[in-house]
Amino acid sequence: MKFRDPQIEMAHGAGGKASRRLVEGLFAPLLFGATTGPLGDAAHISLDGIRVAITTDSFVVKPLRFPGGSIGELAVNGTVNDLAVSGARAEALVVTYVLEAGLPTEILEAEVRAMAEAAKRAGVAIAGGDTKVVEHGKADQIYITTAGIGRPISGIAISPTSVRPGDKVLLSGPIGDHGITILLARGELELEAELCSDTRSVLPLVAALADAAAPGIRWMRDPTRGGVATSLNELARDCGLAVVLAEDAIPIRDTVRGACELLGLDPLHIANEGQFLAIVAAERADAALEALRRTPGGHEAVIIGEIREQPAATVLGATSYGGTRVIDMLVGDPLPRIC
Amino acid sequence: MKFRDPQIEMAHGAGGKASRRLVEGLFAPLLFGATTGPLGDAAHISLDGIRVAITTDSFVVKPLRFPGGSIGELAVNGTVNDLAVSGARAEALVVTYVLEAGLPTEILEAEVRAMAEAAKRAGVAIAGGDTKVVEHGKADQIYITTAGIGRPISGIAISPTSVRPGDKVLLSGPIGDHGITILLARGELELEAELCSDTRSVLPLVAALADAAAPGIRWMRDPTRGGVATSLNELARDCGLAVVLAEDAIPIRDTVRGACELLGLDPLHIANEGQFLAIVAAERADAALEALRRTPGGHEAVIIGEIREQPAATVLGATSYGGTRVIDMLVGDPLPRIC
Repeated sequence: MKFRDPQIEMAHGAGGKASRRLVEGLFAPLLFGATTGPLGDAAHISLDGIRVAITTDSFVVKPLRFPGGSIGELAVNGTVNDLAVSGARAEALVVTYVLEAGLPTEILEAEVRAMAEAAKRAGVAIAGGDTKVVEHGKADQIYITTAGIGRPISGIAISPTSVRPGDKVLLSGPIGDHGITILLARGELELEAELCSDTRSVLPLVAALADAAAPGIRWMRDPTRGGVATSLNELARDCGLAVVLAEDAIPIRDTVRGACELLGLDPLHIANEGQFLAIVAAERADAALEALRRTPGGHEAVIIGEIREQPAATVLGATSYGGTRVIDMLVGDPLPRIC
Repeated sequence: MKFRDPQIEMAHGAGGKASRRLVEGLFAPLLFGATTGPLGDAAHISLDGIRVAITTDSFVVKPLRFPGGSIGELAVNGTVNDLAVSGARAEALVVTYVLEAGLPTEILEAEVRAMAEAAKRAGVAIAGGDTKVVEHGKADQIYITTAGIGRPISGIAISPTSVRPGDKVLLSGPIGDHGITILLARGELELEAELCSDTRSVLPLVAALADAAAPGIRWMRDPTRGGVATSLNELARDCGLAVVLAEDAIPIRDTVRGACELLGLDPLHIANEGQFLAIVAAERADAALEALRRTPGGHEAVIIGEIREQPAATVLGATSYGGTRVIDMLVGDPLPRIC
């Protein structure tokens, strides 16, 4: 599958179908070699016989600060979370800044402080970094990139190919808070609502899940860009099975639901920065759910569906009225630059 | 030392005095904690008892392609080299792209290919990555960030505090090629010359040096932004000793010297992307030099000076006419966005 789009559009950065085309059609064949399997949130490599997980993300969220968080906090939590859902505990981060000339120092300092505080909360050290400055008009205030390394959490081995019919789909809490918060924070809509980004480290929740159900954890992902629908479609494609969701079971705040209805968006496509999905073997699912609910920040965790044999490689939503619909990946980019 | 500049200027990204103020006055105290010693090119951390080196850099060079290299190649070599001069062999890189909407795919593809080829040449795997897209006008085509992890090269322990009077200053080859190549490639000057960037992995040279003189290698650095003068001033400050250079011994191509004279620049302040400095114990210096010269790409290596007790924390240049001058760090930013 060769990438044939003639130029880069916003949708290529949105985490949905266009992003996947870019990664699978251009980056993966050239950079990662033909032997690479499904692309996870972090790579696990062997260094002198010990396994190390490594991941990286750039952050270009706009505006820089929003209810519940800021770009600096996202940059720490995003990388800690990518490691966590790959089954690893973050040990150290490195960070780079691309700064626009003319940026007031107080804006930079606020984000550096936000990173330091988020790193402290997440229990990870910041080990080094780099700064570049570009001319005024060649960036949008601050872009931050973090890379993180971590060690595998004992007993977890994540792979879409280990997913089996009957496995349960767990979700750590309400969805869509981050994306809709960013949308509202831009002030382009005549909407006001009490809503905060869910940005946080999910590592304590992942660790609790591992303690309760480690051998039964098949797969995890934090549904950021593209939302729950995109993450589960990637899973369905990679494991070749059906993911069947009980749509009524998915926790969505009224504010998020209302904003989505108004804008014609599906909450399942909206980005999250502090939630994760886990596929857990049926016999471990109740213990896993209880463990999440007992952990601070996990009381809204739910089982939202299960894996079935058919229809292959598809995500279905079933409602309590008996209807079902096919839930597709995100197409286009309704909410650019949300992380 | 608190960072008091009210806003970010191009000079804060130039690698000289302003960059150092930003790092030491803002980033280091907030992000790295008070216990951090001198900031090296890569951090060495312990993961379950094994030592791992980690580093990161962003690349915003303009233009994207220039004689001898391109942004993608720099992004690989820069991180491989930061690990190498910290005494580590790169094992894996991760990469992020910030892309400007409207970027022609062929430009992106050329850089992805350049990265793949540079990684192959440097013997390092690219393990993963991320892509963000920002609106047209919010970036300058492509910004690339790489992070790398590596394992220490046996027998090398780099620290400015291990430097002693009498140690020799080794340089791997001619200086200033990269910075002047970028300047000429911008076409803003009415100058034409046959010159190529020196971008390359210095790992083979560092490995040869380690084989020949490992216990005698005190310190290494690749003099990128800010050039040889800035790197050696940082060393002089960190070790409290004098670095005395025989200026006539420093290899500088006629083209570089000519362009610098015309523009009022000091070649010692011009960036390099494929050279490194090493401080080596006197008794190992000849063996070290021979080893470099025997290694492909190292035939122009030279000893350019030595460490003395006085004047403390200073870099001096001595000419064959008997004069000496104080060589300062880079101030301002005569050549923005050279990497």
